[in-house]
Amino acid sequence: MLLSDLGEWELLRRLAAFAPPGQFADDAALLSETSGQQLVVNTDVLVEGVHFSDATIPARALGWRAAAANLSDLAAMGCTSVAGITVALVAPGHTPWPWVEGVYQGFQEALQQYGGVLLGGDCSSGSQRLLSITALGHLGPAGGPIRRSDGRPGDWLVCSGPHGLSRLGLALLLEELQPSQRSQLSAELEQRAITAHQRPQPRLDAIAALSRSQPAGLPWRVGGTDSSDGLAAAVAAIGVASGCGAVLERAALPLDLELAELEQGEHWCLSGGEDFELILAVEPAWAEALLQALPGSSRIGTLVDADPGALRWQENDQPLPTGSTGFCHFH
Amino acid sequence: MLLSDLGEWELLRRLAAFAPPGQFADDAALLSETSGQQLVVNTDVLVEGVHFSDATIPARALGWRAAAANLSDLAAMGCTSVAGITVALVAPGHTPWPWVEGVYQGFQEALQQYGGVLLGGDCSSGSQRLLSITALGHLGPAGGPIRRSDGRPGDWLVCSGPHGLSRLGLALLLEELQPSQRSQLSAELEQRAITAHQRPQPRLDAIAALSRSQPAGLPWRVGGTDSSDGLAAAVAAIGVASGCGAVLERAALPLDLELAELEQGEHWCLSGGEDFELILAVEPAWAEALLQALPGSSRIGTLVDADPGALRWQENDQPLPTGSTGFCHFH
Repeated sequence: MLLSDLGEWELLRRLAAFAPPGQFADDAALLSETSGQQLVVNTDVLVEGVHFSDATIPARALGWRAAAANLSDLAAMGCTSVAGITVALVAPGHTPWPWVEGVYQGFQEALQQYGGVLLGGDCSSGSQRLLSITALGHLGPAGGPIRRSDGRPGDWLVCSGPHGLSRLGLALLLEELQPSQRSQLSAELEQRAITAHQRPQPRLDAIAALSRSQPAGLPWRVGGTDSSDGLAAAVAAIGVASGCGAVLERAALPLDLELAELEQGEHWCLSGGEDFELILAVEPAWAEALLQALPGSSRIGTLVDADPGALRWQENDQPLPTGSTGFCHFH
Repeated sequence: MLLSDLGEWELLRRLAAFAPPGQFADDAALLSETSGQQLVVNTDVLVEGVHFSDATIPARALGWRAAAANLSDLAAMGCTSVAGITVALVAPGHTPWPWVEGVYQGFQEALQQYGGVLLGGDCSSGSQRLLSITALGHLGPAGGPIRRSDGRPGDWLVCSGPHGLSRLGLALLLEELQPSQRSQLSAELEQRAITAHQRPQPRLDAIAALSRSQPAGLPWRVGGTDSSDGLAAAVAAIGVASGCGAVLERAALPLDLELAELEQGEHWCLSGGEDFELILAVEPAWAEALLQALPGSSRIGTLVDADPGALRWQENDQPLPTGSTGFCHFH
């Protein structure tokens, strides 16, 4: 069964089954009333051949991952709850319906886990499969927004979890590793790496922990972003926006011990990207409380009074390699 | 200057210039606090070769039109104000920057006219140009939502303005008309038709008039949709959702006199599409007040107790031709 067999109206009817009853009945969607929490919105587009391929991700994992990437941006802005997503689906007429169904099942699974509903969307034929997702969420009741520009020299940099696993998962799926390297890896790590790549977890829970651990009397001021473009890029982005440099402790990189033994391990930890963890800059007292409140989090360094965005190793004051951070399309 | 010359970051920097300062600085966008009005969201995707082509629409008009189509959906849901839009832009690397700049200038012009800002977005390379737009707006302070399913037998059908002009504009741009037909048209009508196609006006003002004209003591109950898929399709959609049929008065079709003389005039009025007017179903007392409050509006018919979505002419009880309504992609 191909999309060209269904036609647009039947396709929309089937997609509506992934939303609450009546949700697709009108020209637009009403959001539920909320108790005054400020709303946050984010849009991401994923294009086949640029952001995903059938070789590395099955449809259901793609749906999960696309939703999770958007929810990660909401978390990076300080959201603790998700209102929902809208989805624009573009695909050629020869696209099999089961692929689309799988993608929407993935959306549904992510929304069931993190809250929110499929609010609405649109679909069209096109030469290439792509998903444009807009996510809507609310700041926490006790929290304010997180901004890249709200770091200050002296803030500790806290990272919500390990880095580099998603890139290892991609390398495994693309069969990039030499057999000698592959033989170094345990089956358990391989599975975790593939899961990290295909089923990343947006860290809305970390924002709840951040709110809980705010010391009494300390005003809300949190610098931060997510590490979708890589750990080093995330720290550099906070530094640039906040007018700070950063020192990172090489021995404290959030790097799985087994991954550290791979030649590429440290590079993937710093620049692999798509780990969807949060990098937060807060005052030391808040950071200490946050490290207690959030298992798996760690201190990776400190913001310092230096050239905006400059990153150095604490151990030897050497600059971190740059130019390998982030992604650039259109080339 | 092509997008591949700019790269993603420089492109994003240039796009950010169309948004308020700092709006693109974070992972997501905060919406301004509102005074408790319910929020409405809508997503539309426009694909080159499916929804637009360089032959029929210059970049700036495309941006206007894309924004206007989304804002029309907000109006169709009962919004009187616009919070803003997010835009996902996909285009091949060989796309000229001036085309993108023109599109965003068009967005900006529409937002300046109707309110709201460019809230955020994303961009990627891809094989085909496309725009996925999500619009956010608020219901009016005195009004509720408009639903397709809220029509009732006996409601008058009120249309906010003329129909068929956009389709005539498209025919002129595609040079579809015979020379003998073309010679029938005044230069003034040609200009209005092309403007209707390239610069449609979302009717947020009609919702304000609807609110103003609500008779005291009458509860909010408004059926409706916009006529983006055509006038007949809009009436049928209200009928299907509301469980009603409709009678339309052929002599009262909202059809420009000059256009009525063209062979295709009535067909384009009923099924041309993309006029982005509103079709509203309200009780007669409200409808009479609305017709007074909204210059250019007219009564086109009545909802009746009949097969859901069935349309008949009032003059002779004959069914309207069907099967020609709406659009279907994926074929």
